[in-house]
Amino acid sequence: MSLPETVTGAPGAHFLAEIRAQPEALAGLLEHEAAYARVAALMRDRSATTVRLVGHGSSDNAASYGVYAFGLLPRWTAFRDSITLTVYYESALHLAGSTVLALSQSGRTPDVIEFVSRARSAGALTVALTNDPCSALAEEAEEVLPLGAGDEQAVAATKTYLNQVGALGLLAAHAACRGEEFAEGLRQTAELVAETIPALQQRVQTMALSFASIGRMFVIGRGTEFATAREIALKLLETCRVAAEPLTATDLAHGPVAALDPLFPVWTIASDDEALPAVVDAAARARAAGATLVASGNAADALADASYVLSVPTPPSPLLSPLLSVVPGQLFAWALSQAKGFDPDRPVGLSKVTLAR
Amino acid sequence: MSLPETVTGAPGAHFLAEIRAQPEALAGLLEHEAAYARVAALMRDRSATTVRLVGHGSSDNAASYGVYAFGLLPRWTAFRDSITLTVYYESALHLAGSTVLALSQSGRTPDVIEFVSRARSAGALTVALTNDPCSALAEEAEEVLPLGAGDEQAVAATKTYLNQVGALGLLAAHAACRGEEFAEGLRQTAELVAETIPALQQRVQTMALSFASIGRMFVIGRGTEFATAREIALKLLETCRVAAEPLTATDLAHGPVAALDPLFPVWTIASDDEALPAVVDAAARARAAGATLVASGNAADALADASYVLSVPTPPSPLLSPLLSVVPGQLFAWALSQAKGFDPDRPVGLSKVTLAR
Repeated sequence: MSLPETVTGAPGAHFLAEIRAQPEALAGLLEHEAAYARVAALMRDRSATTVRLVGHGSSDNAASYGVYAFGLLPRWTAFRDSITLTVYYESALHLAGSTVLALSQSGRTPDVIEFVSRARSAGALTVALTNDPCSALAEEAEEVLPLGAGDEQAVAATKTYLNQVGALGLLAAHAACRGEEFAEGLRQTAELVAETIPALQQRVQTMALSFASIGRMFVIGRGTEFATAREIALKLLETCRVAAEPLTATDLAHGPVAALDPLFPVWTIASDDEALPAVVDAAARARAAGATLVASGNAADALADASYVLSVPTPPSPLLSPLLSVVPGQLFAWALSQAKGFDPDRPVGLSKVTLAR
Repeated sequence: MSLPETVTGAPGAHFLAEIRAQPEALAGLLEHEAAYARVAALMRDRSATTVRLVGHGSSDNAASYGVYAFGLLPRWTAFRDSITLTVYYESALHLAGSTVLALSQSGRTPDVIEFVSRARSAGALTVALTNDPCSALAEEAEEVLPLGAGDEQAVAATKTYLNQVGALGLLAAHAACRGEEFAEGLRQTAELVAETIPALQQRVQTMALSFASIGRMFVIGRGTEFATAREIALKLLETCRVAAEPLTATDLAHGPVAALDPLFPVWTIASDDEALPAVVDAAARARAAGATLVASGNAADALADASYVLSVPTPPSPLLSPLLSVVPGQLFAWALSQAKGFDPDRPVGLSKVTLAR
């Protein structure tokens, strides 16, 4: 069986082409490795070791990964900061000792630019992570780290999300003086992504047919994979019009499990790390509530009673798992969108650059 | 027309009784004001001014409010910390200079207790905010702040959530040496909550009938009201089995708006503060996508084209708005659960104390 070609103009052609171009995009990121090493050194030199991540949409999802990359590698405190507090409420926090990592594919998100402007005045080291190093965001920030993903045309982000995750990991690894090891891991992971896509692309097309009438889903992950859960849920929302909500494995038990039934599937991201037991427990709870279970990730086999299994290879380090775990979700969104009669390249009411405040 | 009595044993009797008991619960919190003043002084004395909030479910929703209370009053950095990073990944962060505020109604949430134990060893000032000052969490933490909400029997939290919000505000206000002013505001707000409940209770019952077949909703708020959006969405999930997802006003535009249609309503929390223009914009975007709009909050009238309006009174300070804004959502969940044929006191598969890891 031959794989569908990515013909320009076919529904979802851009989206699929960019999912498939992700290994190449990661290679593009690694061309900028020296810049990441330099900025990490600057963060250390200035003792700017409280890391404030800001972004919206997929960028904010990648930021969830940054919390773990900085927490696990240099053991610095990183968190998704409130844009509203600084930009709208104008609460002038003391920001010396902080690095602001501002994430925006386009570099044009208005309140992220405004946040950077204020944070810079308040003494933070400001860094723009963007796919457009000539953007307004890049102008506003003290330092620029290019994503190097190449031009992204699909409205729903894929390769820029993956590169944001890789970029945050690379920066955190350099901050911990483990940049070379991480970069080598990224290279190997890019190869695994390339190897895994063809089989997954076939599998999700069959699977999508069973989900054509589904309107609600939970996507659960924990730790480094919470970012993945958020990103897969967002792809399902924007390309498939599914009310997909990301939850940590534990939060599922604190209320949302009550909503489940067989037509309310749960997509579970199971990766082989210390958070896996919590994810296995949550999956069992979802099954007990009657939910249809999708098991994905490199430890998908650890989940009992899954109706669908979308395994991915195990990367050289658990911190690299999210780069692989998101791929089945991206491909599934591409397939489900079409199964529902939509064009994943044309989400209703969205444009590539979101200028909403 | 007389109001329904809260007869023990009737569907949702506990839930409704506890929603109605919220003014009394806030009075119970204020009996402990001296303890809040003392702990705030301790935070200042020890320069433990980085505030790490941890909790699950409603407690985590209240934590979202804490970010703003501490950011706006003493202008300290507060964030919802990752439990997974410390408890599962055992990443030993440096916690001197930090206060951990651990939120748990029951004081029995296992990984919150474990987080406190590790944070205390790592040099943080640890504070338990719990409705049970004799719980394991209270034992583990260095300081205990009682919520004073009285016994909560309904599985879905209401008065303990409200008291958590009040407690975080009170602590932040004392940290800013504005505790007395905030306490007086809380007293006035409790009166406004009491005054607003009877009319809202009638209104939501009529409204719920139109929503009986709805299975998906977004709940949007921004800034201090993002906590409210999260809490209302959780009530709808656990008592009404609606896939309700909380979004910031801006995040709606970054993808999720594509999923909307007339059977996918948007509940909007509009309060009169600096974030209101962003909420008004988001509501207009939701309407343009064809969504049915519910406008709530003290600036509900600012939203054009809302199909349903659930206004609440304006409290003495914008920081107190979330205590009022959540009430229409709680009452609506109570009414909708019954309109759907469920018993809000008996969410499927949940128990009052969640011991899930």
